[in-house]
Amino acid sequence: MIKLNTNENPYPPSPRVLEALARVADETLRLYPDPEASALRARAATVYGVPAEWILAGNGSDELIALVLRAAIDPGDRVAFPVPTYSLYEVLVATQGGEAVMVPFGEDFALPAALADARARVTFLCNPNSPSGTLVPRGEVEALARSVAGILVVDEAYVDFARETALPLLGRHDNLIILRTFSKSFSLAGLRVGLAFGHPELLAGLRTVKDSYNLGRPAQAAAEAALADLPAMDANVVRIRVTRARLVHELERLGFRVPPSEANFVLARRPGIDLGALARTLAGRNILVRHFPTPRVRDALRITVGTDAEIDALLAALRPLVP
Amino acid sequence: MIKLNTNENPYPPSPRVLEALARVADETLRLYPDPEASALRARAATVYGVPAEWILAGNGSDELIALVLRAAIDPGDRVAFPVPTYSLYEVLVATQGGEAVMVPFGEDFALPAALADARARVTFLCNPNSPSGTLVPRGEVEALARSVAGILVVDEAYVDFARETALPLLGRHDNLIILRTFSKSFSLAGLRVGLAFGHPELLAGLRTVKDSYNLGRPAQAAAEAALADLPAMDANVVRIRVTRARLVHELERLGFRVPPSEANFVLARRPGIDLGALARTLAGRNILVRHFPTPRVRDALRITVGTDAEIDALLAALRPLVP
Repeated sequence: MIKLNTNENPYPPSPRVLEALARVADETLRLYPDPEASALRARAATVYGVPAEWILAGNGSDELIALVLRAAIDPGDRVAFPVPTYSLYEVLVATQGGEAVMVPFGEDFALPAALADARARVTFLCNPNSPSGTLVPRGEVEALARSVAGILVVDEAYVDFARETALPLLGRHDNLIILRTFSKSFSLAGLRVGLAFGHPELLAGLRTVKDSYNLGRPAQAAAEAALADLPAMDANVVRIRVTRARLVHELERLGFRVPPSEANFVLARRPGIDLGALARTLAGRNILVRHFPTPRVRDALRITVGTDAEIDALLAALRPLVP
Repeated sequence: MIKLNTNENPYPPSPRVLEALARVADETLRLYPDPEASALRARAATVYGVPAEWILAGNGSDELIALVLRAAIDPGDRVAFPVPTYSLYEVLVATQGGEAVMVPFGEDFALPAALADARARVTFLCNPNSPSGTLVPRGEVEALARSVAGILVVDEAYVDFARETALPLLGRHDNLIILRTFSKSFSLAGLRVGLAFGHPELLAGLRTVKDSYNLGRPAQAAAEAALADLPAMDANVVRIRVTRARLVHELERLGFRVPPSEANFVLARRPGIDLGALARTLAGRNILVRHFPTPRVRDALRITVGTDAEIDALLAALRPLVP
C-alpha cells in the first residue's frame, strides 16, 4: 500500500527521538508528567527565539485548535476561515456552538479580502493551506492580524516545507496565535504533540480549559529530542522539497494544473473534471491519494509527497489513466 | 523528597510495558495512530470481559470525564456528585457551563440519599472515593444507577485496590459509564491513558466530541502491554494493600481516625483539629502529604501508600508532631 493521502512524512524521525523514547521507558512513568511541559517549552524557546511564557504545548495541534475555540467562543460567536481548508475548523466550531463564516479563497487561492471584515471572534488561516499547498505571504498575514476583530490563529502545520513563517510577527500583534505540529516535518504523527505561540495572556486563556496532564512523559521527551536535532528534520524536508519539485513537473507534463506548493503535498487539478473516479482507481491499485467531493476541489487530487520510489509508482499508475 | 500527595504508585510498571515502549520507538512514529485504539480496546475487552464496542480509550480518565460533560451537558444543566470528592468534576462542570449540585456525603462517607433525587443530567461517583478512600458497595451503586435521572459515571480510578467493581452492572444499565485509569494500579501516571466502559450509544456521543487522534502510539502500545501483564500490577497492588493495613494500624495508634480505605491512600483524621500546619511541617521535612483546607476535611491528611520505607519515614516524622 502506497499511502499518499494523509500528509505523513515518508522518512523516519531523528534517531535521537527514538533514543529519547527508549530512555523514558523507565520507572519514572509511575509519576505524573510535568503539566507545563517545561523542558520541551524551554527547548522550543531556544529553537524558535520566543520566550517560554509565549509557548503552550498540546496533544497535537488539533488539541490546541480545540482549546482556542473553547477558551474564546461562546455559543453563536462567529469564527471565520477561508475555504477550502483543514476540515477540523468547521467541525470544532460546530462542536463549540459557534457560527462558522466560510469565506472562499480567491483565484489561485489568494487570501480573500472579505476575511478581514468577517467580524469574527476567531479567524483561522491554515498557512501553507491544505488542500491547496499555497502560502499567504507574511506581509498579508500581518495585514490580516491588524484588520481582524478578534484572534488570528495561523496554523503552520506545514510551514517547515515553506519559504517563510509568521513567527517574526509574534511580538507585534497581541491577537496572534501561531500553531506548529510535530506530525509533519518532524515525522512524529504517531506521537501527538503540537505547540502554540502567542501572547502570555492569550495562552493563559487556553490554559484555563486545558487538561492539566494533556501530554504524557514519552511525548514530552520525544518532542524535546526532535527539537534538539533540527538537522535531521531539515534533511528530510530538503528531500521532500526535491521530490515535490519533480512531482509537480511530471504532473504538469501530464496536463494537471498544480498551484505552487509550499507543503509536503500538492494539489493536482484537471479543471472541470471530477477526479473521484481516478482516486478510486488508484486506490484499487493500492495507491491512496485524497479526493474531496466538494464543488471547489472535486476536480483535484491531493497527493502527499512520498519517497521517490512512491512517487515513481504513482506517476507510472497515473500516466495511462489521465483523463 | 518523599512524595505521598498525588496517589502515584511507588512501584514501577511491568517490564513488558517498558519493552513495549522501547519497541514502539521506530519509524512507524511517522504515521498517525489508530484513532480507535483498536488493539488496546481488544485487549481490554478480553481482560474485563466486556465487548470492545463498549470501550473507549482516552488521554487519561481526565479526558474521558471532560468528554462526558461535553457530550451530555448544555449550559445550565445539572451535574451532581457527593462531596468531598475528586476536585476535577467541579472544575469541568464550570468550564462546560453546567450547574454543579454538590451533595455532602453522609456520616462515614455513606452515599447520600439526596444524590439520586438531584435531577441531574450527569451524576459522578468516585468509587473508591478520594479523599476518603471509602467504597460504596456495588448494590448501592446499582440502586443509584436505577434512580438517577440521567447518566451515572462511576469513576473507578482506584478500584484495583478495592474489593469489588461495578463492571458487572454494565449490561444491565444503559445509563452507566465506568471509568478506569492506568495512572494508579498500573503505575503509569506519566503515560496518560484511561478507559471508559458503557453502552455503545453512550460512547458514540463521547466519540463525537473526542479528538480523533487523542492517544499516541506509545501510549496505546504501553497500555496494551500493561493489560497483558496483570500479575505485575496485582503484585504491586498486594504490596500496597499490605502496607496500607500497617499504615492504618499505626495511624490509629497515634490517635488518628481512618475511614476504611479501599484505595492506595488513606485519610487520617483528627476530628476538629485543622491539620494544615502539620502538613506544612511535614513538607518542611521533605515529606509531602495532601491537606484540603475545606470545612469537611481540613481536620485530615490524605496520605498516599508509598513503599514501606517511605511509610516508616512518615510515621517517624509524624510521631513527635501529632497534635
